Amino acid sequence: MIWNTNLRWRLPIACLLLEVALIALFGVFVRYDMDADPHWLEEKVIKNLSTDLENEFYYRYPSFQDVHVMIFVGFGFLMTFLQRYGYSSVGFNFLLAAFGIQWALLMQGWLQSFDGRYILVNLENLINADFCVGSVCVAFGAVLGKVSPVQLLVMTLFQVTLFSINEYILLNLLEVKDSGGSMTIHAFGAYFGLTVAWILYRPNLHHSKERQSSTYYSDLFAMIGTLFLWMYWPSFNSAISNHGDAQHRAAINTYCSLAACVLTSVALSSALHRKGKLDMVHIQNATLAGGVGLGTVAELMVLPFGSLIIGFICGIVSTLGFVYLTPFLESRLRIQDTCGVHNLHGIPGIIGGIAGAVTASIANIDLYGEEGLAYTFGIERSKLNWSPNTQGRFQAAGLFVSLAMALVGGIIVGVILRLPFWGQAPDENCFEDAVYWEIPKEPKSTALHSEDSSIKPSEP
Amino acid sequence: MIWNTNLRWRLPIACLLLEVALIALFGVFVRYDMDADPHWLEEKVIKNLSTDLENEFYYRYPSFQDVHVMIFVGFGFLMTFLQRYGYSSVGFNFLLAAFGIQWALLMQGWLQSFDGRYILVNLENLINADFCVGSVCVAFGAVLGKVSPVQLLVMTLFQVTLFSINEYILLNLLEVKDSGGSMTIHAFGAYFGLTVAWILYRPNLHHSKERQSSTYYSDLFAMIGTLFLWMYWPSFNSAISNHGDAQHRAAINTYCSLAACVLTSVALSSALHRKGKLDMVHIQNATLAGGVGLGTVAELMVLPFGSLIIGFICGIVSTLGFVYLTPFLESRLRIQDTCGVHNLHGIPGIIGGIAGAVTASIANIDLYGEEGLAYTFGIERSKLNWSPNTQGRFQAAGLFVSLAMALVGGIIVGVILRLPFWGQAPDENCFEDAVYWEIPKEPKSTALHSEDSSIKPSEP
Amino acid sequence: MIWNTNLRWRLPIACLLLEVALIALFGVFVRYDMDADPHWLEEKVIKNLSTDLENEFYYRYPSFQDVHVMIFVGFGFLMTFLQRYGYSSVGFNFLLAAFGIQWALLMQGWLQSFDGRYILVNLENLINADFCVGSVCVAFGAVLGKVSPVQLLVMTLFQVTLFSINEYILLNLLEVKDSGGSMTIHAFGAYFGLTVAWILYRPNLHHSKERQSSTYYSDLFAMIGTLFLWMYWPSFNSAISNHGDAQHRAAINTYCSLAACVLTSVALSSALHRKGKLDMVHIQNATLAGGVGLGTVAELMVLPFGSLIIGFICGIVSTLGFVYLTPFLESRLRIQDTCGVHNLHGIPGIIGGIAGAVTASIANIDLYGEEGLAYTFGIERSKLNWSPNTQGRFQAAGLFVSLAMALVGGIIVGVILRLPFWGQAPDENCFEDAVYWEIPKEPKSTALHSEDSSIKPSEP
Repeated sequence: MIWNTNLRWRLPIACLLLEVALIALFGVFVRYDMDADPHWLEEKVIKNLSTDLENEFYYRYPSFQDVHVMIFVGFGFLMTFLQRYGYSSVGFNFLLAAFGIQWALLMQGWLQSFDGRYILVNLENLINADFCVGSVCVAFGAVLGKVSPVQLLVMTLFQVTLFSINEYILLNLLEVKDSGGSMTIHAFGAYFGLTVAWILYRPNLHHSKERQSSTYYSDLFAMIGTLFLWMYWPSFNSAISNHGDAQHRAAINTYCSLAACVLTSVALSSALHRKGKLDMVHIQNATLAGGVGLGTVAELMVLPFGSLIIGFICGIVSTLGFVYLTPFLESRLRIQDTCGVHNLHGIPGIIGGIAGAVTASIANIDLYGEEGLAYTFGIERSKLNWSPNTQGRFQAAGLFVSLAMALVGGIIVGVILRLPFWGQAPDENCFEDAVYWEIPKEPKSTALHSEDSSIKPSEP
Repeated sequence: MIWNTNLRWRLPIACLLLEVALIALFGVFVRYDMDADPHWLEEKVIKNLSTDLENEFYYRYPSFQDVHVMIFVGFGFLMTFLQRYGYSSVGFNFLLAAFGIQWALLMQGWLQSFDGRYILVNLENLINADFCVGSVCVAFGAVLGKVSPVQLLVMTLFQVTLFSINEYILLNLLEVKDSGGSMTIHAFGAYFGLTVAWILYRPNLHHSKERQSSTYYSDLFAMIGTLFLWMYWPSFNSAISNHGDAQHRAAINTYCSLAACVLTSVALSSALHRKGKLDMVHIQNATLAGGVGLGTVAELMVLPFGSLIIGFICGIVSTLGFVYLTPFLESRLRIQDTCGVHNLHGIPGIIGGIAGAVTASIANIDLYGEEGLAYTFGIERSKLNWSPNTQGRFQAAGLFVSLAMALVGGIIVGVILRLPFWGQAPDENCFEDAVYWEIPKEPKSTALHSEDSSIKPSEP
Repeated sequence: MIWNTNLRWRLPIACLLLEVALIALFGVFVRYDMDADPHWLEEKVIKNLSTDLENEFYYRYPSFQDVHVMIFVGFGFLMTFLQRYGYSSVGFNFLLAAFGIQWALLMQGWLQSFDGRYILVNLENLINADFCVGSVCVAFGAVLGKVSPVQLLVMTLFQVTLFSINEYILLNLLEVKDSGGSMTIHAFGAYFGLTVAWILYRPNLHHSKERQSSTYYSDLFAMIGTLFLWMYWPSFNSAISNHGDAQHRAAINTYCSLAACVLTSVALSSALHRKGKLDMVHIQNATLAGGVGLGTVAELMVLPFGSLIIGFICGIVSTLGFVYLTPFLESRLRIQDTCGVHNLHGIPGIIGGIAGAVTASIANIDLYGEEGLAYTFGIERSKLNWSPNTQGRFQAAGLFVSLAMALVGGIIVGVILRLPFWGQAPDENCFEDAVYWEIPKEPKSTALHSEDSSIKPSEP
């Protein structure tokens, strides 16, 4: 089979068509929400707001920017660990996320912020669009190095659509708590990506095996991604929580969980190496599992030590996954999971979902206060028969729905992506930037920057 | 002609003299604004402020820090793409920006925050100083690799001065809207820098041609700069907007424009390569043009789809510029534009200025509301004869003034920088860190970090 | 002597035991502060708060995230300058900080936020925990490359304990101002680390001398650390200042000081090189000394020009220290200070402490206003006999206490770390990642990413 990886017309046409369609749809549907509209001045008077700070902007902007960094620098650089795939990791992540956030503004808008005529966007919509794209970045990690940018655009188009529907079912129909997206973002994204990777199985991938490892510097670049994800995860899990104590609590919980997760990841990484050496793959990935695992319960009353326990467990399970599960998935289940998203987002996402169900089902007025309980779980007139137990069961149902959607969606999208005309590379050219990028020639000198005086003769 | 690039006394004396002068001027002129003064406690009572949050600090601090990152990491790392000029890109950018912000606090202070006796500084002054220096960073991009740090200090001294005057004309005399600085920062900075580059034309620059390209890792470092600029641009364009809906709207618009710009940059980059491959130069630069183009209209009612259109156009025009215009400028107009600032800041800046004139001239009460219109355009008692049309014409005038100032100023400064004693490098040593930096010797082993066991003999 | 650097059981057991102990202690002692508790809704009514923004979260969250970045990316990448120690610099810093913040939450909690039964944590506790760990990161800089991760955990355990006690003495007993921690964080951390390095003196360290230098790219990675520290330092020094004007003033002062410091660092770096070339070590480190020096006075009335003067002096002294003092310390005092923390944190920390004593002793009602003076120095009923002079003397006492604690503590901890079973590397294997990390094999091709077409045969 002869592959044509020259995207000269396919990629430009895909990008331009999509963008023109987006502009048309934005023109018809998207307007500013009241908080971003000049008429807000009148709204202020009507609502008797005493200060400009009551604008939603000031509640959410710092968290928004942190989340934005996680999506573009965090995910982008996390995937640069491959020795010859740094341009694609950062660049394709950039492309799919830039497309995805626009499409997510529309899809999530129609389902959540539609006033009958217009989608009214404010900062919360931007955060939610970033979140949605986060799940695509997760899925990208599973197929990294094996798909073309055109395939990625197609995958993003479908995944954002499915994500929005799944999110609608969970948040609006099942009325589930999932502020940091353990279920909607991580578990959904991971199992969607893994299913796609399963459908796109490449039996001869060992031909490009040498490029599946890292180099010294590529691992350092990846640590930039890791650290920005790790540091800003408290913002991720608190970005769309309720104002006030809920955001505050979500940040504290996530901070605790992530800290604990680092210690157990390091412990397991060393314990599982015959000479006790640490493996960069674990430090780059498993240390983040604590943030994923906290995604559902972040704003609930898990208490700081509960957060530590979740982080503790996630670090262990995730590192074990990298050592034992990833090879097993590839050899037995034919799932080639390039970045190990199953260990970082899949299992910890499920742990997070279960933790959410448990934590919700033991909620009580002692812990939350009467008002606090109502505010936290959004119990209003419509939910007279609400009970912690029901909430717990709905949380569990949300997890199953997410997994089912990921599986079914992943199969459909995987089959579409198998079509032979998307410009994918042959097995022996996977994980190789040069297929889609103009690569600079390296300087002639063997040493990277030798100090040969010959090149600066006239310097005194 | 013999060049002396040994800066042993010139650079230290320049730095120390400038800093001593700055300290003296700060001692005479600079004091804290009320919001940063302990007397604010009394002010709170007088103004009947109910909360400490009404301090300007809380409105602007997150945006300030984002802008700060753009200037130092964003611009600094964006320019590290050259294979042997990373130290200078980051280091000289650091130096000129650190000097420039101090001088800008004074220049902008005298023109904008002078109470007759003192310059009263608060966070907004710091943001404006960062903005002013942003235009110097832009100009630095045009002359990158061809000037000495002493020349950069001289250029910064003059450019900050001219910037402040131009800004005063635009904002205070023409009463133009330009919150993200399409005209004052980007167009001014780019054409100033290009004019300087034109005066400093080096006919034999091809002698250092091999160092004008990138390496694999230098391109990845540059992507750090690109992404921090891209992600934080919504903060840049909203940092000094009016409180409330204006900041909110500016962030949304910029977010949209930048997202669209990525898709068209990728599309054009692929379409213009004979094998359809992407070029890192376009991804690093053209993707940002959407932020530049939105600079003037950011807080105006362009609507989200208007922002997408601006981003769409900027991405196309910018990429075309890199492919066709930069070579043309060099070969025909003798303008050697190292970073292609003409494509990233010049043309998109002009597009932004024009978009501002158009958007202002179609402003109306339907769109903004009566109060909103007055607040947005600062229409007060003094401007009884204000009309959208007048505003539009003043906006256009602002663009022309900026370009004229850039040209005239660039010629003068260029001529000054041509003087032979600033320590500039000869043509064959341009784009070379070793001229001004102590460069580490590379490790002896050919492979960068070979795992030769010989170096750790006693490990068990 | 035979060293066993295989940490297979020691590191995992240390991590797991510590984390289990932390979880147990958190379970017994740590609860949410009112601002992070669902009962805050009731508190709002009681305290008659009109808006959710009055939650402490909104005052501190942006600064918290900036500080968080400084600890993990700032310190982590600053230390990647060594050619073969990047994994350890970033990775061990990650490990010790993740452990340290948990232990600091407990230690500082018992001493500062204990309500008799529980430690009540909110965002300010998280910031203080990050601060505390910052001092460990400083000490890590002194022993970088010469200690095992197990030693680092032990050092962190003790240093956090001592830090918390010292902080309690300064802030609660001496009632000293030190919002940016010149004394408690920087001077304490540096002299603690130097004392440990002195006890751990390695006479044959020259065996690994070739790995004590940097490479071109490792220096660029270090600049990421430098810049994030430099840019976010205004947040560091203002993060726990009083609400309102104090935070505002602290940010302005630090911004000024750091800018001045860059110019004098560059000046001295060039002046002290025989060819006038700049040294990356100075640009990476001395430019930050202005932030350290401002730590104590940040929120006091030093005025902007006073901040410039402090930055001016710190840049000079720090660069001189790197050139003259570090070699002297090693050859005469047998203190091997890998990162030169004495120059970046030690001396500037002392300068900061002295500046604090002087600035406090000249405080008066003219400068601060009556209310302002009382608010700034926390003068309440208990301190009827407060005078600027007393405050100044207590400030000076605080500096001496910090230095004494650092010395005594450093000796004790150093002796503990000399025990032979912590897995430290022999002298010839210091500064070498391969001792504790699985290192990737470099690609076979000599050039890092040669464009040999052989590896992608079927591309059309």
